[in-house]
Amino acid sequence: MNDAVMPLPLPRLGVLGGMGPLATADFLVKLIQATPAASDQEHMPVIVHNVPQVPDRSTAFLAGSDAPWPHLLDGLRTLEAAGCAAIAIPCNTAHVWHARLEKETALPVLHIGEAAVDALLRQSLGARKVGILATKATLQARIYDDQLAANAIDAITPDAALQTTHVSAAIGAVKGGRIDEARVLLSHAARALIAQGADALLLACTEIPVALAGVSLDAPAIDPTDALARACVGWWLDARNERNASAPLESQP
Amino acid sequence: MNDAVMPLPLPRLGVLGGMGPLATADFLVKLIQATPAASDQEHMPVIVHNVPQVPDRSTAFLAGSDAPWPHLLDGLRTLEAAGCAAIAIPCNTAHVWHARLEKETALPVLHIGEAAVDALLRQSLGARKVGILATKATLQARIYDDQLAANAIDAITPDAALQTTHVSAAIGAVKGGRIDEARVLLSHAARALIAQGADALLLACTEIPVALAGVSLDAPAIDPTDALARACVGWWLDARNERNASAPLESQP
Repeated sequence: MNDAVMPLPLPRLGVLGGMGPLATADFLVKLIQATPAASDQEHMPVIVHNVPQVPDRSTAFLAGSDAPWPHLLDGLRTLEAAGCAAIAIPCNTAHVWHARLEKETALPVLHIGEAAVDALLRQSLGARKVGILATKATLQARIYDDQLAANAIDAITPDAALQTTHVSAAIGAVKGGRIDEARVLLSHAARALIAQGADALLLACTEIPVALAGVSLDAPAIDPTDALARACVGWWLDARNERNASAPLESQP
Repeated sequence: MNDAVMPLPLPRLGVLGGMGPLATADFLVKLIQATPAASDQEHMPVIVHNVPQVPDRSTAFLAGSDAPWPHLLDGLRTLEAAGCAAIAIPCNTAHVWHARLEKETALPVLHIGEAAVDALLRQSLGARKVGILATKATLQARIYDDQLAANAIDAITPDAALQTTHVSAAIGAVKGGRIDEARVLLSHAARALIAQGADALLLACTEIPVALAGVSLDAPAIDPTDALARACVGWWLDARNERNASAPLESQP
């Protein structure tokens, strides 16, 4: 009855997820939506390490703790063993550990900040000042700053008071399911950054685009989770083409 | 800087998914919604094998082909190697291969038909005749019949013409994004089964609950994907309690 042979496998994406689990599910949907596919079989193969026991990244970073690291490394090793050919992390703050993860593996580890700034540049908005709405840890760890500086774009961030009372409070409100409250807080913070001269916004925490969905702002906004999904699809299409060019034809599905 | 030790890991669920990828993402969301958790860290750890290159299960089964099998076995082995303690398959038709997968592994492989019939019984509807809306392969392979028979419930299925022109056509319409068309076809098929005496319905293909969302029918309907998610949460809470009872306290997170 075994009339099938396994073709040479397609390159697989490894998702180091669970931070939090709903953001990981949202990232999977964005991956699927961004993939040009006419059937199930044309979609990207993905292994998802959706293990949410990683201690809170923001809290750890701000306290100078390395508690998330062994969990992240364990996830990386699991994804390597499952045959993944690249890694993506759908959590902005976890990118604090991005450079260390890269050093631990031969696989490319896509960077959410690079993907988001690429998406901004591709939109040809001519943005010179970009407002960043993110956790305090993402801002302090300068997850987006290198990519922006490399493209001569200035970062505008909320002052300490606005960050605490509006941005951090709103992220907590989304995690607690209070979306309407978060929408009011984030709309105010976004408008404050625009008033300070931001000509585009980076919604650099997975909770933020959820709360700002449908809100009309006076500047274009980039969703880094969506940008990372599109970068993964770009990686995959290239890797698939390369594999097809090198594989014997009869082993292609 | 390494001030953290890894606690004894929690039991992990392995999701043999990708059939199709959007149904897998939907299953993840249902898992999260069904889990009693007040923080990210209290959610279930899940490894997802979302590899959609598995050949179409219905086509293969109806043609007497075993083409999906090596893909399913490969997914099972990957999930075992990733440390999973139980397996769930968010695809009704793939349950054609459920018994063979069970024989290949020491892990429990949850059954979508068992979960759906359990959910039906828990609702205490006193249903004695249940209408099944599913792919032709799910019906022919009798995925739900054993569980129903064990509980003295009769299965009512569409006749060949209604199956082809309404149910199979509607599943194709959902896969092609034509939800409105599918809703009309499935509402008609559901009403036909109710007219034949069905006092409850099983929406036994991941595409069907999507199309029937919001449609008011004269009989209660069970979503087996949701029932499987709830069965997984039940498995996990038990497995976590067992592990906590046997683990030394200081290694608990």
